[in-house]
Amino acid sequence: MAAPSFSESNSAEIVAERLRNGADGRLPQFLVAAVEHLHRLVKETKPSAVDWRQAIEFLTEVGHASDHRRQEWALLSDLLGVTALVEEINSKRPKGATPNTVRGPFYRGDAPRLPLGASISLDGVGEPLEVRAWVRDLDGHPIAGATIETWQANAQGVYENQQPDLQPEFNLRGVFTTGADGAFHYRTVKPCGYAVPGDGPVGQMLGRIGYPLRRPAHLHFLIRADGFETISTHIYDGSDPHLGEDALFGVKQELVGAFGWDGKQWSLDFTFVMVRARKERAA
Amino acid sequence: MAAPSFSESNSAEIVAERLRNGADGRLPQFLVAAVEHLHRLVKETKPSAVDWRQAIEFLTEVGHASDHRRQEWALLSDLLGVTALVEEINSKRPKGATPNTVRGPFYRGDAPRLPLGASISLDGVGEPLEVRAWVRDLDGHPIAGATIETWQANAQGVYENQQPDLQPEFNLRGVFTTGADGAFHYRTVKPCGYAVPGDGPVGQMLGRIGYPLRRPAHLHFLIRADGFETISTHIYDGSDPHLGEDALFGVKQELVGAFGWDGKQWSLDFTFVMVRARKERAA
Repeated sequence: MAAPSFSESNSAEIVAERLRNGADGRLPQFLVAAVEHLHRLVKETKPSAVDWRQAIEFLTEVGHASDHRRQEWALLSDLLGVTALVEEINSKRPKGATPNTVRGPFYRGDAPRLPLGASISLDGVGEPLEVRAWVRDLDGHPIAGATIETWQANAQGVYENQQPDLQPEFNLRGVFTTGADGAFHYRTVKPCGYAVPGDGPVGQMLGRIGYPLRRPAHLHFLIRADGFETISTHIYDGSDPHLGEDALFGVKQELVGAFGWDGKQWSLDFTFVMVRARKERAA
Repeated sequence: MAAPSFSESNSAEIVAERLRNGADGRLPQFLVAAVEHLHRLVKETKPSAVDWRQAIEFLTEVGHASDHRRQEWALLSDLLGVTALVEEINSKRPKGATPNTVRGPFYRGDAPRLPLGASISLDGVGEPLEVRAWVRDLDGHPIAGATIETWQANAQGVYENQQPDLQPEFNLRGVFTTGADGAFHYRTVKPCGYAVPGDGPVGQMLGRIGYPLRRPAHLHFLIRADGFETISTHIYDGSDPHLGEDALFGVKQELVGAFGWDGKQWSLDFTFVMVRARKERAA
């Protein structure tokens, strides 16, 4: 027997050695790091064989609960902050620029283009909100011709693609383009916060231990402009009581909006700041 | 906003804080440790958003490929040495005792009881092998009345429950009991090594990077005796060319058998050494 016997003290090294003996590339390198952390986790937490079998069953269920309408693995990654961390690592921006946050599962790429000032509320249900926004570069210059996709939950905290039989298609979604002044504005209704799905294996496990599953009210924006890094972000309602515990870890001070009430409608003024695309991380 | 904003430097701490704020118990403690390792893994390997989406898709596929006949998650845990590590941690034994190894997916609990000396080869295909074994305690005293379940692949490296249409039911499986001398013996055929399933997402991913998926030839034993820790182990064929790279990390010097050939048949002599059950880890 050439290889040393597998033991608690050398387990990760033995597996890593096999990985290194195979093909070169990023996958084996990633697996070496994953195995090191996984073995350390097992040594620190010392699961029994029964614990480990239950873990395997849970992981299996997470896959079984995922289909083309529901991605339970993405939800697990979101709720444990991994998706937000991957986003942080890949979109570091200078101070003053609008940060990216996770896109979430409710985006649709086929929403209609609308003229500035149009309403995206197709059923008119909810308190009216006017959004008045500006897209600028880091020096404060307006960015003309930027494309803004926006989408949001309704006043009950539900997206149209979650209830296709109850909301009109494309309700609370629209695509706008900034004019020469870099501004855009549209009408909508004030969104409500909501809880992420709690009926799958991930929501059930985390709900059972009292883990926060709520998202504070927010609007989604995906903003593209030639020569700039794409912004994919949220603007949060600063008065939402769950602002401090967004289940998807997207809340940052720069992304909190002040929704004002004038007696007839809500309004939100917000400025998005884009940074020039670097070649190595072109949007 | 009470909570600090989520960033690369505090991400794991923010998630851990939420876990600690919920219910007490082993699950939240395990998740805190898991999140710390997972976030460190992401920071070290810096996956792009596309990499991470591919990882999510892979994990989803592993679940989708698992059903009541096939446990692809268990296979992944086995091949990355995690199952073997969990076994190591939970069955530390004094020097001289027969170590445990992973049980593997081909065990059946309903194999027939047979008299000593019987053959478990129901189709007679393969080179004959006689197994002569002893079950003793650490002091060398024979253990009478121990129950031995054995199962193995055939001369082509296939278990009967992998090909129910080609092999007789319970082929190469049997249950024996030691006599007053602590001995048992039976006839069988020499097993062949094999590769773990390579057609699922786990085998495909690891096969692509040249990771070893073979198991050297072996016999499985599950040995129970009142007052002793149950042994669940393999005896390996010491002449198998893949002995140094068992895909399931079960090979230990104490578990390598010398299969002898006398011109007519193979024989294997082996002594199993059991340790008295400790109350806190009663078998």
